[in-house]
Amino acid sequence: MSLGQVFLSEAVGSMLLLLLGGGVVANTLLKGSKGQGTGWLLINWGWGLAVFVGVLASGASGAHINPAVTVGIIARNMILGNPDFVPGIAIGVVSTLVYFAGQLVGAMIGAGLMWLAYKQHFDAEENPAFKLGVFSTGPEIRNYGWNMVTEIIGTFVLVFTIFAAGVFTLGADGKGVAVNLGWLGALGVGLLVVSIGASLGGPTGYAINPTRDLGPRIMHAILPIKGKGGSDWGYAWVPIAGPLIGGVLGGIASTFLLV
Amino acid sequence: MSLGQVFLSEAVGSMLLLLLGGGVVANTLLKGSKGQGTGWLLINWGWGLAVFVGVLASGASGAHINPAVTVGIIARNMILGNPDFVPGIAIGVVSTLVYFAGQLVGAMIGAGLMWLAYKQHFDAEENPAFKLGVFSTGPEIRNYGWNMVTEIIGTFVLVFTIFAAGVFTLGADGKGVAVNLGWLGALGVGLLVVSIGASLGGPTGYAINPTRDLGPRIMHAILPIKGKGGSDWGYAWVPIAGPLIGGVLGGIASTFLLV
Amino acid sequence: MSLGQVFLSEAVGSMLLLLLGGGVVANTLLKGSKGQGTGWLLINWGWGLAVFVGVLASGASGAHINPAVTVGIIARNMILGNPDFVPGIAIGVVSTLVYFAGQLVGAMIGAGLMWLAYKQHFDAEENPAFKLGVFSTGPEIRNYGWNMVTEIIGTFVLVFTIFAAGVFTLGADGKGVAVNLGWLGALGVGLLVVSIGASLGGPTGYAINPTRDLGPRIMHAILPIKGKGGSDWGYAWVPIAGPLIGGVLGGIASTFLLV
Amino acid sequence: MSLGQVFLSEAVGSMLLLLLGGGVVANTLLKGSKGQGTGWLLINWGWGLAVFVGVLASGASGAHINPAVTVGIIARNMILGNPDFVPGIAIGVVSTLVYFAGQLVGAMIGAGLMWLAYKQHFDAEENPAFKLGVFSTGPEIRNYGWNMVTEIIGTFVLVFTIFAAGVFTLGADGKGVAVNLGWLGALGVGLLVVSIGASLGGPTGYAINPTRDLGPRIMHAILPIKGKGGSDWGYAWVPIAGPLIGGVLGGIASTFLLV
Repeated sequence: MSLGQVFLSEAVGSMLLLLLGGGVVANTLLKGSKGQGTGWLLINWGWGLAVFVGVLASGASGAHINPAVTVGIIARNMILGNPDFVPGIAIGVVSTLVYFAGQLVGAMIGAGLMWLAYKQHFDAEENPAFKLGVFSTGPEIRNYGWNMVTEIIGTFVLVFTIFAAGVFTLGADGKGVAVNLGWLGALGVGLLVVSIGASLGGPTGYAINPTRDLGPRIMHAILPIKGKGGSDWGYAWVPIAGPLIGGVLGGIASTFLLV
Repeated sequence: MSLGQVFLSEAVGSMLLLLLGGGVVANTLLKGSKGQGTGWLLINWGWGLAVFVGVLASGASGAHINPAVTVGIIARNMILGNPDFVPGIAIGVVSTLVYFAGQLVGAMIGAGLMWLAYKQHFDAEENPAFKLGVFSTGPEIRNYGWNMVTEIIGTFVLVFTIFAAGVFTLGADGKGVAVNLGWLGALGVGLLVVSIGASLGGPTGYAINPTRDLGPRIMHAILPIKGKGGSDWGYAWVPIAGPLIGGVLGGIASTFLLV
Repeated sequence: MSLGQVFLSEAVGSMLLLLLGGGVVANTLLKGSKGQGTGWLLINWGWGLAVFVGVLASGASGAHINPAVTVGIIARNMILGNPDFVPGIAIGVVSTLVYFAGQLVGAMIGAGLMWLAYKQHFDAEENPAFKLGVFSTGPEIRNYGWNMVTEIIGTFVLVFTIFAAGVFTLGADGKGVAVNLGWLGALGVGLLVVSIGASLGGPTGYAINPTRDLGPRIMHAILPIKGKGGSDWGYAWVPIAGPLIGGVLGGIASTFLLV
Repeated sequence: MSLGQVFLSEAVGSMLLLLLGGGVVANTLLKGSKGQGTGWLLINWGWGLAVFVGVLASGASGAHINPAVTVGIIARNMILGNPDFVPGIAIGVVSTLVYFAGQLVGAMIGAGLMWLAYKQHFDAEENPAFKLGVFSTGPEIRNYGWNMVTEIIGTFVLVFTIFAAGVFTLGADGKGVAVNLGWLGALGVGLLVVSIGASLGGPTGYAINPTRDLGPRIMHAILPIKGKGGSDWGYAWVPIAGPLIGGVLGGIASTFLLV
């Protein structure tokens, strides 16, 4: 496996993640959409299934599609002495940046395609807050400290449980083993995200993934969206920093809390 | 396997798809039905589970039950040099038309059975738009270009992800391999359609399948439905052309975007 | 396997089916229950999961827990020349009656336990129609002919799809093969029932199972339920006859429509 | 396997169970949360998926995360002559107390983390009954006897069905066999809990687990929650005694009702 393939795999998975994840929020928020007003259950299941689809399409690179998962693996593997992300891709600065780049570029493309799919409804919608809400997360009660706590806890559950489920295991040679998640594993990770959203998404809208939030926010700023407001860059660092911290903590904790 | 069996398998799967898929819309839309007013979540899950059932019953022919999947496979297999739909059925004009015919005839029969199951509620319902809406899709904001964009994107996700999940693989001899989806694969495809509906169904009602829309539309025109209005033939080409384009693009993209 | 074990297995599965299936309707209908007013989505998923649990617990006897499935198997096996329900239990009048008896007795016990679990809410509820609705099905628009059509179609889908999914297969010796459904098969059958309910349950409340309706109706007549009304015996034959016809048709059709 | 590992495994699973299970109630009840008012369907699925995650993370100790399951296994294994909880851990007073301790400590930690994740919404919420309701269960119609009946029946279904599904099997040597539930088994147990909640949760809120109720109740009493009311200790014994009785009955019944 090459770094180019890692980039492609992560980009394709992240593209599907944001196309479907952004789409479900557009469906329930934007004016005139058939799903308008369906609400939180639609969003929870829609995002979880977006993860299911994204994981299905990016198994070759380990289906991170989330920098918080990538840093969680780095933390865990450094402690366990496993030098690889997947067989043939050693953990290092360059490979880590390739993962991040694929995730960010894919997320941006996915958000762009979502905007095209809902173009007329973005035009019809009058509330600029709804338009931003389709792209990126925002807290209900703004307080950077507590918002960060919520994002850390949610991402911790995500990364810790992925390791608990044995998605990334260690071979007899002390190196990582490629795990083909398949239908069932992809469904499992998707349901885990439904759970985190239902249970821990109330305060901040559960970014739990830096590029899921940053990629669409960049697109919101760039795209010629009719009647859009600001992109709320003041909050943008929280759904980057919180998930990265939560991911590292999840990776570390997985090495001594799992029996 | 014979072409007659292909026809039968696709017709049975499509029959179940439209009986159940049309039925869930009837349940939430038609007057006096127990599910009246339940709304979008019921429709999303109901259609996804209709796909689950249709796929369960048509595995022998590869469970296309959708011409967009059939053309996606043709596009992909022509590029990869795989000459077969399923072992024993070579890709060609005749076999392709047999797939299409089974899909269309099955969809028509399924829509007819659905009408019988809800006969009294069709009679009681006064809104002709609801009656058509149970049979075929229609856009919320009519614009053939943008409606087409939405249908192309939705179908692209469907066909591309089916290939990503490895449903149709290539054997060591360069020919197609029969894949028995079983409970799990059928569930996976069903959940994929729940996802596409939740996330990309808001603007046009996600036909993402030409015969899913055309078959019931023909039945709407033919059947003696009390108080029915027109069958909106002006829109009928969009949910045919859009999904066919999306399916071909999904098949092509799967050959170079999947690692 | 003995006939006594068949009786026990079917009774335990049917008991769980009606305890959970009746319970979910009680939860959404009866006064003061935490789920009051949740509606159709709760009922659909609740009944489907009740089937999931009932099937998990009655695998030894083939997990019919429904006379319509039993007669569907008889019809299918007579055509295919398979003499057994499950290995060791030959199809015959006595064994068929043992299946039916287990299903009916289990359904009655389950409905009785459900009543105990919701005893205070039955006492608090004032509408006698709601109390009957927790036990047995009833049509929205009463017309024995069309109600029968709906029940036949719904049960046909159930029994036909169970055979399509390969739950009951034929061994090399021409005899039936015991199939352990396990978690996945039980989930599959449960989701099939969610689908049928969502799509075809609107007109009659989808009995699709004679003892699911008759057992609780008998209990409704017998139990000292505070403020109960009549048990609507005039309709009682429809959810018996319709599902039996649909089951036989599903069994017959499965022998020549499945490739 | 050591008793320390049993403690750790049960504590980690119970921590995730209460963090996610409490969280989903907070999301729908507390002021200003994004899921506020979503209601019973969110709670049912959220709790079921919380069990799914908790089971994923505690497979090493058998994934009890519930004293009612532990006493059900003791009852069943005493009858069947199986001396072990899991290979290497003999059933006894000390090992049972270690299970209970892990379950209680984990539940307390999980409830504490949940409070941190929703800290601002606990502060904003004015209704003290909602704050207690996020932590512990309470009946809609208070009557210790009938509330107990409901909890006994619900827990019986949980424990009996777990044994019916073959989660804890007996090896050829008459000793327990370690069962790795994996994604599918964890999903199955989670869906079982969705079912019990949907169907039997209406009267009491389905504790069906002593430490799920007691651990958070202790935390509600201890934590400096703004504007909290009493912790309703008068009811606290019901969701302890009821589930323990139901668990023992489920374990005993599983030895003679399952074929």
